[in-house]
Amino acid sequence: MPVDALHLQTLIHGSNHAAIQDALLHLTPREAAEAILSLPPEDRLAPFAVLPHRPAAAVFEYMPEDAQRALTEAMRPKEAAAFLNLVADDDRTKFLSSLPPDTTQHILSLLTPDESSEAAALLKYPRGVVGRLMTMHYVAVPEEWTVGQVLDYIRQHGENSETLNVIYVVDDRGVLTDDIRIRQLLVVPLEKKMSELMDRRYVILHTMDRQEDALDLFRREDRTALPVVDDNGCLVGIVTVDDVLDVASETATREMQKFGGSEALDEPYMQVTLGRMVKKRAGWLVVLFLGEMLTATAMGFFEMEIAKAVVLALFVPLIISSGGNSGSQASTLVIRALAVGEVTLVDFWRVIRREVLAGLALGVILGTIGFLRISIWSAFSTIYGPHWLLVATTVALALIGVVLWGTLVGCGLPFVLRRLGFDPATSSAPFVATLVDVTGLIIYFSVGLVVLRGALL
Amino acid sequence: MPVDALHLQTLIHGSNHAAIQDALLHLTPREAAEAILSLPPEDRLAPFAVLPHRPAAAVFEYMPEDAQRALTEAMRPKEAAAFLNLVADDDRTKFLSSLPPDTTQHILSLLTPDESSEAAALLKYPRGVVGRLMTMHYVAVPEEWTVGQVLDYIRQHGENSETLNVIYVVDDRGVLTDDIRIRQLLVVPLEKKMSELMDRRYVILHTMDRQEDALDLFRREDRTALPVVDDNGCLVGIVTVDDVLDVASETATREMQKFGGSEALDEPYMQVTLGRMVKKRAGWLVVLFLGEMLTATAMGFFEMEIAKAVVLALFVPLIISSGGNSGSQASTLVIRALAVGEVTLVDFWRVIRREVLAGLALGVILGTIGFLRISIWSAFSTIYGPHWLLVATTVALALIGVVLWGTLVGCGLPFVLRRLGFDPATSSAPFVATLVDVTGLIIYFSVGLVVLRGALL
Repeated sequence: MPVDALHLQTLIHGSNHAAIQDALLHLTPREAAEAILSLPPEDRLAPFAVLPHRPAAAVFEYMPEDAQRALTEAMRPKEAAAFLNLVADDDRTKFLSSLPPDTTQHILSLLTPDESSEAAALLKYPRGVVGRLMTMHYVAVPEEWTVGQVLDYIRQHGENSETLNVIYVVDDRGVLTDDIRIRQLLVVPLEKKMSELMDRRYVILHTMDRQEDALDLFRREDRTALPVVDDNGCLVGIVTVDDVLDVASETATREMQKFGGSEALDEPYMQVTLGRMVKKRAGWLVVLFLGEMLTATAMGFFEMEIAKAVVLALFVPLIISSGGNSGSQASTLVIRALAVGEVTLVDFWRVIRREVLAGLALGVILGTIGFLRISIWSAFSTIYGPHWLLVATTVALALIGVVLWGTLVGCGLPFVLRRLGFDPATSSAPFVATLVDVTGLIIYFSVGLVVLRGALL
Repeated sequence: MPVDALHLQTLIHGSNHAAIQDALLHLTPREAAEAILSLPPEDRLAPFAVLPHRPAAAVFEYMPEDAQRALTEAMRPKEAAAFLNLVADDDRTKFLSSLPPDTTQHILSLLTPDESSEAAALLKYPRGVVGRLMTMHYVAVPEEWTVGQVLDYIRQHGENSETLNVIYVVDDRGVLTDDIRIRQLLVVPLEKKMSELMDRRYVILHTMDRQEDALDLFRREDRTALPVVDDNGCLVGIVTVDDVLDVASETATREMQKFGGSEALDEPYMQVTLGRMVKKRAGWLVVLFLGEMLTATAMGFFEMEIAKAVVLALFVPLIISSGGNSGSQASTLVIRALAVGEVTLVDFWRVIRREVLAGLALGVILGTIGFLRISIWSAFSTIYGPHWLLVATTVALALIGVVLWGTLVGCGLPFVLRRLGFDPATSSAPFVATLVDVTGLIIYFSVGLVVLRGALL
């Protein structure tokens, strides 16, 4: 039964509690969250007030952070805490770290002692590391148990585990010795011992690993959950794939924003305040602007030539933008290839070789079009003057040079940045374009000086 | 025991079959795949020849398509088929669709009849739809079974299922009626009937859904597997989250490549032939070049003004690149926000309002820097002539106008493209820059005409 916002709103305004509860419990938690989010903000608290705590906590987990914040602020603190006791610990960490530190402390103090110390432990890890994604709810058993014992244990204690897809085996000091997929337990006789199922082949995460590396490992290993160990090899938590899917999306966002020439916003576009957004964007824009000022200096060196042959100035935007475009193509391809591991630092010379050929081919294509354009125009007008053939030659040769140069800068820069320990995505399209603009002008006017000497210059 | 490439190579050259097998079986399939990939291509077949078929198939699933292709080409066809019978059907579909059609047909004819018809059925779905990601190996049971019956069934028939994390419930016509997570079966008494566990709340995919939509649903629903139904609601397969993580990565690659101003390569960077790569890149580069030619036309209109005030030409690259940079910032932010659903079409005016303010702020910042730069330079040199104050004013005002305009084009274009049914990512950084270049020139020279009239012009 689909619940539309209007229907839900009617129920809320009619204060029909049983009907609200019934309508929401027929939905998956995600659908219920979406139905509630489609209500005006002032109506969103009512459904939470009538839902039992456990389903309410499940619905809460599917809401974006700003809606979560608004809801908990509207509740009385005790009520909010009663309810946050039941929210899954990994989702709760995410929510708590979106709050101002004071509020976080206040909420922590209202949780049950167990939940509070668990939440505090998870919040101790810095942002961006695996510890922040962990849940402490998993099933870990000793090697000497039989499959039957494990299944009995799960039946009694498995309810709170974040996943039962994987069961962990630990020794008496809590050191992880294997992970066993539940499927393995389900297809063998109940008398088998865990030790007989173990192959001791497992992959682990460390609490301080970067979340991006966890994403990488999940992608390569095709797992739905991975164990997290501390420095002593003790199992301290697990990370499940659903949280990693979110990391994948956030990582792509950050990468794209950097690539588009601003700092990563780190907040949803519609929620970041105007001031913060301008600050994040102005930084790079100013750096690029300062760099681009060199074009005025470069142009200044050729002021005499421009005065003599104004026609040269007409093609400046065309020439430098072609260099910028080819550079931003090359840099995107290489940045992405580096990011997904299709290309590594050792491939530098192979990539350069490819790009020299590609850049030459692209330069010749654009140069030819430019040459034809000027020649054909000149057949019908005198805009390019009596020396149009020389002008066309200058533009064509400059295009080949600038496109080749743009391509090389674009493909080389991400390698250089990676080698120096920076994020290759910093070599954004605008950054490459700026670098290429200055040198592109020098290439263009130098070609002009050679070709046009004696004629126009 | 970590196996390095050198050690493995020594074993291979010593023809020590038992040792090779032993070394590889101590690794996870992914680690074994990486160890084999680190060998020179001519040595990669040997480990496959000594591994039993089933582990060999598991290792094969973790290899990139080009290595898979090289391996199967090196094997005798019968041998390749014996082995492909055991590769998971979803991974096999991916591999088979990377082969030339003739080879695919030949291999299909060598598989066992069951596997062959299964593989052929999956290959019938077009690229990019959910059907291509499906596996047909899952556990489906009728509602009247007890949990004990289901667990017994799994113990006997579950071995080949791609996942046992979710069990599907179907009626006697094969129509899906619910999905039950294995965790639910493991925490209730064995006598419970499946019908008592059912809540009939489930999310489904259709065979012809786009893979990107599946990714979206996985992200929102936090599932490890989702059922796929045909037009009659019959369960025909399932999709597991590991395949969706690959889709996430491929989608981000395509999006970034488009955004960088080329067509999506659709192949790893190092594998696409030079010819195909040039073709994919030349298309957009030529379109942008043709658009950019309008800058020469625009500049042509102001040729007289440039001849009179060459100083104006010096700032052309600075002005237009600032418009391009602010445009590409705005478009990345909006494209990404649209892609992840933070912003939808109805937010158009709210976004425009934000961006007008952001664009103005950024324009004023750059305009001020530009003004100061020219003023300070003029204190020490005569490069900008006696009317430097007017020149500085022209540049500052033009910067405000151009940055504001670039920001508006950058944020508006993705909406327009989405509205017209195109992919917003098409409004790449270079595309926005090109659009802004032409209009930026007109803004700049128009401001110049007003400010400098009577002085320089």
